[in-house]
Amino acid sequence: MKVRRSDRLVDMTRYLLERPHQLVSLTFFAARYESAKSSISEDLTILKRTFQARGTGLLETVPGAAGGARFIPYILREEAEQFVDEMISELSEADRYLPGGYVYMSDILGRPAALRQIGRILATQYLNQNVDVVVTVATKGIPLAQSVANYLNVPFVIVRHDSQITEGSTVSVNYVSGSTKRIERMALSKRSVKPNSRVLIVDDYMKGGGTVGGLRSLVDEFDSQLAGVAVFAEGDFAGQRTVSKYTSLLKIQTADEQIRVTPGNYLTQIFGDETK
Amino acid sequence: MKVRRSDRLVDMTRYLLERPHQLVSLTFFAARYESAKSSISEDLTILKRTFQARGTGLLETVPGAAGGARFIPYILREEAEQFVDEMISELSEADRYLPGGYVYMSDILGRPAALRQIGRILATQYLNQNVDVVVTVATKGIPLAQSVANYLNVPFVIVRHDSQITEGSTVSVNYVSGSTKRIERMALSKRSVKPNSRVLIVDDYMKGGGTVGGLRSLVDEFDSQLAGVAVFAEGDFAGQRTVSKYTSLLKIQTADEQIRVTPGNYLTQIFGDETK
Repeated sequence: MKVRRSDRLVDMTRYLLERPHQLVSLTFFAARYESAKSSISEDLTILKRTFQARGTGLLETVPGAAGGARFIPYILREEAEQFVDEMISELSEADRYLPGGYVYMSDILGRPAALRQIGRILATQYLNQNVDVVVTVATKGIPLAQSVANYLNVPFVIVRHDSQITEGSTVSVNYVSGSTKRIERMALSKRSVKPNSRVLIVDDYMKGGGTVGGLRSLVDEFDSQLAGVAVFAEGDFAGQRTVSKYTSLLKIQTADEQIRVTPGNYLTQIFGDETK
Repeated sequence: MKVRRSDRLVDMTRYLLERPHQLVSLTFFAARYESAKSSISEDLTILKRTFQARGTGLLETVPGAAGGARFIPYILREEAEQFVDEMISELSEADRYLPGGYVYMSDILGRPAALRQIGRILATQYLNQNVDVVVTVATKGIPLAQSVANYLNVPFVIVRHDSQITEGSTVSVNYVSGSTKRIERMALSKRSVKPNSRVLIVDDYMKGGGTVGGLRSLVDEFDSQLAGVAVFAEGDFAGQRTVSKYTSLLKIQTADEQIRVTPGNYLTQIFGDETK
């Protein structure tokens, strides 16, 4: 039975939102709703208009009988800034200060709504670029990597400091921790990244950049290319970072048991803002 | 300017899907679209009908001027079974066998589409129950916990084997690993779970149940109650498990380098199927 336009709109929205970056054909929708392709095309125009008006994302439509639509999520600068401002005021709460100059942020990295927005913002930088896999390191980067991977609709893989029997054969690298100058080791399952992949590195926090540097050597070991580096927060670091190009949402400085949180470089990196 | 019905339907669908279990008021939607509450009510009826027809979830509508709607995601038994069958055939591939009788499944636990379905299935069991927080243990349970938490729209917290300075004060427990019989230790940040929370434990794999037992003692230490235990896969275990009540999607047995994957107990636990 032919499905009404109103019902089609609701279901198509849900269907496309759940499959970012994936081309869904007119033929598929026409069969699903027992409707003419011309009607489906009109529906897609409505979705496209609404997604654009609300800053949900881009609905790329591929014309012709073999065509279809692909939903590419993004966030508008204004909404991103509003979210980052909320994070700044929340992370500036005095009781988040931890001994050693750290800031407690595990609660935020376990809150679905915050993770969704962080993922959307970081994925926006790569909406026109090819990313094959997101790589992070256990433990706290995982929720962020998952959220970014979700919006890019690519797999994510977890690099570990401890070697696990459940990972099978692994490739491991040594790296120097940027802040403590100690030598550490990290490993990634051999079958997790195919050669010639475009790899996006995602982590929660970067100080000296040693961990990210280690991840980058791993990318080389897998004969793959670095697509970019994105972190939730960067810490204050006096020396020369091993990583020069990255995107951060926040910058966190601590001194005398005081927390100072400011926006990271995301306006320049993601939204191309030259004034900041 | 008054927003057209078609555009409202698209945006309301997106808005509600992103906020599971959260009541969104008629007043909010009426203002957002500069439309009459009566029109919004009609829109919600369309969403409700389509969500039900497609097995997306329940749209609970609260009547009256102070009313609104709440989207409660679920999965239908048929779709869950189809997904579990796909997992069974994929995990049965011979090259997933790892020395020691383990099965490689990290790729699946890093695939957004699979994580979404696993989260939906496991969350379906708790659609009518109050869950305040999802608890998992590092590392491989994290993506699953995040997905379940996403559908329940509650925070998730990560228990760790290594104590981390970034977690602040922690509460730790000792537990006996069910399969190796060794004493292990796990810790959870003190500020992560409020007293009297209803806690859902989620993990990727359970063999003897020792880890889950440890997590349950932690729940006690936080003066909280166990809402349930859900795992992606259960292994074969000859002895008496320390955990008697749990939900599993899959059952994995390995012997003589052969992998045998069958459905877990989810049909009984989630869909109340008495015949299996």
